[in-house]
Amino acid sequence: MKLEKISKQISKWFDGRGPHSEIVISSRIRLARNIAGYEFLPRLKPERQAEILEKLKSAILSVNVGEEVFFIDVAASSELEQDLMVERHLISHRHARGKGPRGAVIAGTEAFTAMINEEDHLRLQVFKNGLQLTECLAEINKIDDEIEKQVEYAFSPKYGYFTACPTNLGTGIRVSVMLHLPALKMTGQIEKFFNATSDTDLAVRGLFGEGTEAIGDFFQLSNQITLGVSETEIVEEFTNDIVPRIIDYETLAREELLSSQKAVLDDKIQRAMGLLKSARLISSQEALFLLSNVRLGVNLGRIKDIDISTVNELFMLTQPAHLQINNNKILDSEQRDIVRAEIIRKRLSQK
Amino acid sequence: MKLEKISKQISKWFDGRGPHSEIVISSRIRLARNIAGYEFLPRLKPERQAEILEKLKSAILSVNVGEEVFFIDVAASSELEQDLMVERHLISHRHARGKGPRGAVIAGTEAFTAMINEEDHLRLQVFKNGLQLTECLAEINKIDDEIEKQVEYAFSPKYGYFTACPTNLGTGIRVSVMLHLPALKMTGQIEKFFNATSDTDLAVRGLFGEGTEAIGDFFQLSNQITLGVSETEIVEEFTNDIVPRIIDYETLAREELLSSQKAVLDDKIQRAMGLLKSARLISSQEALFLLSNVRLGVNLGRIKDIDISTVNELFMLTQPAHLQINNNKILDSEQRDIVRAEIIRKRLSQK
Repeated sequence: MKLEKISKQISKWFDGRGPHSEIVISSRIRLARNIAGYEFLPRLKPERQAEILEKLKSAILSVNVGEEVFFIDVAASSELEQDLMVERHLISHRHARGKGPRGAVIAGTEAFTAMINEEDHLRLQVFKNGLQLTECLAEINKIDDEIEKQVEYAFSPKYGYFTACPTNLGTGIRVSVMLHLPALKMTGQIEKFFNATSDTDLAVRGLFGEGTEAIGDFFQLSNQITLGVSETEIVEEFTNDIVPRIIDYETLAREELLSSQKAVLDDKIQRAMGLLKSARLISSQEALFLLSNVRLGVNLGRIKDIDISTVNELFMLTQPAHLQINNNKILDSEQRDIVRAEIIRKRLSQK
Repeated sequence: MKLEKISKQISKWFDGRGPHSEIVISSRIRLARNIAGYEFLPRLKPERQAEILEKLKSAILSVNVGEEVFFIDVAASSELEQDLMVERHLISHRHARGKGPRGAVIAGTEAFTAMINEEDHLRLQVFKNGLQLTECLAEINKIDDEIEKQVEYAFSPKYGYFTACPTNLGTGIRVSVMLHLPALKMTGQIEKFFNATSDTDLAVRGLFGEGTEAIGDFFQLSNQITLGVSETEIVEEFTNDIVPRIIDYETLAREELLSSQKAVLDDKIQRAMGLLKSARLISSQEALFLLSNVRLGVNLGRIKDIDISTVNELFMLTQPAHLQINNNKILDSEQRDIVRAEIIRKRLSQK
């Protein structure tokens, strides 16, 4: 498996299916682990960092994750390849531009990825489409246990897993869901979502791009607390309480739009479609906004000749590094806008 | 000929053809006349205003203007019918909502119209497509002479024709051209146009709508001086000097766009087309902007499957009174936006 092959596919967790996928795009669980007897990364000498890389690489490659996995030497990758992996959520930006020996083990379908020598020695991630946190947890625990048979994690019975940053201490778990909330935005009720997530220890970020700002109605919601709460408790709170509440808000807002603002809704959706099919220059930010409206249109049955996986594919393939790797050349900003518009036009005109 | 029939057609002068029609949409000449022995309108008693209406109506109906003409009792027309005539430039808003007996004689192709009891007792107008002021002048002079054989105009050898407002005194002529200057706007050079028209006695207004503001790159340019300059001099200055200069500026700006900003140009044109073909709600102002870009696209050969007369037809038929008369009902603003969007979508999808 090569990155060039991955760059043309749609990640399995991003195929637009799965439970509650009209609103919950995907679920992710991440575990932070460190190896006993080694310094945390900022203080780790290059030779010892290389030792960890080798140790973890061979441990993870020997684990059966149910499908083929492959190793990527992140330090030896080009910036464009690094950016491609970041755009696909396979590695973090910090990992991409980090220092010293580091790498990633990636499953062919991208449902599993391990970052070696990111902020912690090891970060495991499992992704699934829709709302499937319980399934993510079962799977990542199995993988984590298999790895733990081969390496000794830094662990204290009192504090749990030690991590480079104290906010991850304890379970070292980060649970997150990626949400699409266009109707709450359109009806001016997005505050409901922020209120539902503000008094608990939750963080809200964007789904795409570097910053924490949410673009195009996409939100990534994750836990902040890793100490004193079990993994299962966090997953259950997300699955049975927090996420269902947000799903209800968004569903209600969508019903409102359909019943009392149908013309306005259809206008937005069809304009987005019209622009995507006709623009000759399109920025990644505008593409996100327009595709977000189209995604809503498909999910509400207002657009019938396109399916969600096509929309999601366009979200992914029109990102800057994807455009350049799939075109085999460095493109400046205007060239990317031209190529992006071309890809979108072509894809949306196919039936 | 009824207004309902006219309301579905495209005025001959607005068919997008004629000399220099890529830039000069149409030419118009208007003459202001008053009848000797009668007061100007503000001081005219209703009975005498009715006398003038009858006198001028029968005089004009007896003139051979080369095609069938018909009389409309403007005072007896509904507001919607009045607005329809205003939208087609057949009568003025002042005439539509004026007081007392008043009417209009209109040629079937709308190339000629006479307003009786507007600001002056009589205002004659001749319209032609493209740059044809000389032809307009010849035609209106012929009609004016024929009418003068039957009624005595208020005229002084020293001052010329008397008019209700002193700014029309003398020749009583107003010469105007309707211009489409999208490239000057797009390239930020519209000041060139305003400079070319500011130091002379010219007035610039919009082509559509009530106000004087130009919407959607359309400008109406006319003379302000009627005293001390002959009709022929004014027409020649427009035809040989002012208008050719503006045509040169706009042509150059279009060439600039084609040579150095083709992607940006095509993006604007295709986006406009995409929005017009997909929107479900569209205001008359947005329609003007978008149709303006499409008109540029057709004239530059960037859009090939639509012709200018279709674009012009949409300019005219999507105006508020047109929408309502052609749908046989009063429509509120949102209903108009829906119907407007429907008409445009349907028309642009026909091949």
